[in-house]
Amino acid sequence: MEKSPLGAAAPEKSVPTQRNFIGASRPSAVSAGILAVAIMIASAAPAAGAPAQVVTTQVTATLPQSATSSANQVLVERRTPSYWRVTFNNPPFNIFGPETIPQLNTVITAIENDPNLKVVVFDSAVPGFFLTHYDFVPPLSDSTGLPSGPTGLHPLPDMLVRLSRAPVVSISLIRGRATGVGSELALATDMRFASREKAILSQWEVGAALVPGGGPMARLPRLMGRGRALEILLGADDIDGDLAERYGYVNRSLPDDQLDGFVNALALRISNFDGKAIADTKRLVDFASLPSDPEIAAGWDAFITSVQRPEAQAKITQLMKLGLQTNGEIERKLGHYTETLTQD
Amino acid sequence: MEKSPLGAAAPEKSVPTQRNFIGASRPSAVSAGILAVAIMIASAAPAAGAPAQVVTTQVTATLPQSATSSANQVLVERRTPSYWRVTFNNPPFNIFGPETIPQLNTVITAIENDPNLKVVVFDSAVPGFFLTHYDFVPPLSDSTGLPSGPTGLHPLPDMLVRLSRAPVVSISLIRGRATGVGSELALATDMRFASREKAILSQWEVGAALVPGGGPMARLPRLMGRGRALEILLGADDIDGDLAERYGYVNRSLPDDQLDGFVNALALRISNFDGKAIADTKRLVDFASLPSDPEIAAGWDAFITSVQRPEAQAKITQLMKLGLQTNGEIERKLGHYTETLTQD
Amino acid sequence: MEKSPLGAAAPEKSVPTQRNFIGASRPSAVSAGILAVAIMIASAAPAAGAPAQVVTTQVTATLPQSATSSANQVLVERRTPSYWRVTFNNPPFNIFGPETIPQLNTVITAIENDPNLKVVVFDSAVPGFFLTHYDFVPPLSDSTGLPSGPTGLHPLPDMLVRLSRAPVVSISLIRGRATGVGSELALATDMRFASREKAILSQWEVGAALVPGGGPMARLPRLMGRGRALEILLGADDIDGDLAERYGYVNRSLPDDQLDGFVNALALRISNFDGKAIADTKRLVDFASLPSDPEIAAGWDAFITSVQRPEAQAKITQLMKLGLQTNGEIERKLGHYTETLTQD
Repeated sequence: MEKSPLGAAAPEKSVPTQRNFIGASRPSAVSAGILAVAIMIASAAPAAGAPAQVVTTQVTATLPQSATSSANQVLVERRTPSYWRVTFNNPPFNIFGPETIPQLNTVITAIENDPNLKVVVFDSAVPGFFLTHYDFVPPLSDSTGLPSGPTGLHPLPDMLVRLSRAPVVSISLIRGRATGVGSELALATDMRFASREKAILSQWEVGAALVPGGGPMARLPRLMGRGRALEILLGADDIDGDLAERYGYVNRSLPDDQLDGFVNALALRISNFDGKAIADTKRLVDFASLPSDPEIAAGWDAFITSVQRPEAQAKITQLMKLGLQTNGEIERKLGHYTETLTQD
Repeated sequence: MEKSPLGAAAPEKSVPTQRNFIGASRPSAVSAGILAVAIMIASAAPAAGAPAQVVTTQVTATLPQSATSSANQVLVERRTPSYWRVTFNNPPFNIFGPETIPQLNTVITAIENDPNLKVVVFDSAVPGFFLTHYDFVPPLSDSTGLPSGPTGLHPLPDMLVRLSRAPVVSISLIRGRATGVGSELALATDMRFASREKAILSQWEVGAALVPGGGPMARLPRLMGRGRALEILLGADDIDGDLAERYGYVNRSLPDDQLDGFVNALALRISNFDGKAIADTKRLVDFASLPSDPEIAAGWDAFITSVQRPEAQAKITQLMKLGLQTNGEIERKLGHYTETLTQD
Repeated sequence: MEKSPLGAAAPEKSVPTQRNFIGASRPSAVSAGILAVAIMIASAAPAAGAPAQVVTTQVTATLPQSATSSANQVLVERRTPSYWRVTFNNPPFNIFGPETIPQLNTVITAIENDPNLKVVVFDSAVPGFFLTHYDFVPPLSDSTGLPSGPTGLHPLPDMLVRLSRAPVVSISLIRGRATGVGSELALATDMRFASREKAILSQWEVGAALVPGGGPMARLPRLMGRGRALEILLGADDIDGDLAERYGYVNRSLPDDQLDGFVNALALRISNFDGKAIADTKRLVDFASLPSDPEIAAGWDAFITSVQRPEAQAKITQLMKLGLQTNGEIERKLGHYTETLTQD
């Protein structure tokens, strides 16, 4: 089956030759050492890859990093008029960056407005990664300079709260890592089903001296209670499929070979139900369970503040030297590697 | 042990010869086809059965439907002055209808006012059914025409919120189906214990293009978090005892042969405690956990609106043709049969 | 490793020769019989023990009761500047009384103010008891006469809400009984890990005609939902490690021989993270999950009211006669013995 990006392709943007970490928008506050590392990594960045129009894109083992400047990172397949699949496709790590935002926004807007849609399943075309953390290579201004979304929030949290309130059912099918933005996207969908063997969920940010920005401080305690939410957020470690189910991080974890069939059957089932009954029922659940937008905004602001602190820059620098965004070993065991970092 | 209805028996009411589905109160908005089916089913309705004064009433295999016009659908046994059992007894399916409401209301009022009562256990005398969905045979006006309860809510949600706030402990002992109203009643009680093998819980309404009316959009997310609540409400499928425990839909599921002993021991234990300590402790839990009455009212209004929509009428018509309210196979596998319905 | 109390030792206070239960501050309202029992037990009280400066204090089998007038009931060990252990050490039962309050308050204040601290683990030096119920021997005025804490609450709930809001991570390592105050302290910490074989949690108060005072009506429903919270509070029974995990009373229960290693590794991990990222992340979780102070105050007031009622005095008298605070059998099986009490 063919998958393609929604709407017109985003305009190609050339890769800048000099980049800082997203925290380094104010060079005067950043040490030369950090800048040097940032530039070194940015120089190794490949030119934006050719648009991946088809899911069969192979993961290229030699790719030095998961640039988030490529087009078509978010593919849409309309299985039926009422049931879509949205597939994250930014190999090799499914990192999410500022240039992913307008691509995902096009999809979210379509989800909000299609009169026939009832169910959308989010999954991944990249082995080992559902969707992972924010891209630390582009300058912070690439993110903070984006115009606010319809809710008035920054477009990243804006998309997540709009997805939560959309009048259709959203389901995350989690195989591989859902870390940082990946976890936050999954938490913004209505339900989460995970591979018992192959899913890893985490909010790793505190391990890098960051505050998570996409809403987990608001969503996790409402999902599983304060104690387990604080463990996930402050322990900042990798959570496997079994523990994710016990904690309520996901609805259920299923044996990997049953996951696709289960989620597809549930999606088909719901897609045969009445759209207005779905929307009206969900709206009342929203009232009982969704955080307010200002609460989400506070989390985003805390993230933006945290990423500019020298302590965060120091930890990100260490992680980049270890191979964050370039070495699969680091990305796959992020919970372990944050524990090896030193304080400045 | 003898069980009897509380207070004076409700006045007998003859079965009308012409009935519509509860959604069909405005005939101009309903197709002739739907009306025809409704009348056909109504014509097959038996006269109101003799009052079932005793629990030993046998399920009559030939009963063509579970009329909700019989008296004594809600039996009360005072095991001790401080411990009552309330038993749903409307064979063969324990369907709940507008004429069940005043009968249950008499019981709820007694629960609220008896100075010696501390614990009440809700169970069923009907094999396979704890308490199930609303009766679709009586005209909608039979339900909407009922006077509001003391809270100002329609008497069905009124009774449920009053039960939640009553100064005594209410426990659901769930064996068989708790679907629709049955699930909502169980959710309104303070605790739920289920048979691991024989309990099925569900909010099936969205599968019939309905919005649930008895509060589950308010109660389920507060009990188990948004993700699992949305799965139950929008997946609208049957949940067995094991999954009900994992999701927190019930406190615990126990092996069927241990369920009665466990619940009885817990009820006896609490019935020996001090009533004022129970009431004062519960009141503070209420503050932390109960939805407001307007939130419950919004759910009821959404149900009443939904049941009048042609999409719901069409699905109910299909279900009635399949055997809803007349064929045990349909009632027992409602989660499956809603999936077989076509959209109009 | 040596452990010592924080700050200056609390002034020694001689044991009064006549004591009532904490509910018996107004003798005119208390029967002579109750007073007689109270005095009998008070007469058997030992003089305040020598300050236990070291954790190796042996539990003295012949100690007739767990006096809460001894100094050094709360020991602090600074494992590193960023990681402390706080150890309850009031053998043989780790009962908590009015004279424990200023000792714990000194520790909580240090936790709030130490600029290097990031993680504090609460555990026990007393086999079989993490921390248990309030001391019923001192007169009520010893508790009600204490000045309010910085939040304006009574100092016991004041300390608990301050601990919840402290900018560091608090973890309860629960081995043995966490009953009453012990459960409430654990619930006020950020995370709870329990011994699968050796932990017992309970809010036993309703079994003694009391309302719990340290916040569980506010905290339990937000942690595990209304149904399970009401079971714990109104069933008032002992909850073992396995059930505590299934209900979300604790984050996880671990095999006893793995518990210390697990908690220590988690504490060390977090202690290497950035303190400001921890504090800023926790603050947003606080917003989403903490009850308000007035809600906690209402619980405390309900406890103080309840303990003065004759029904509570009668049940406490029965428990004291059975051996509460003097007989390990009663303390260890409190959930059972509350069931054996008669109503007056």
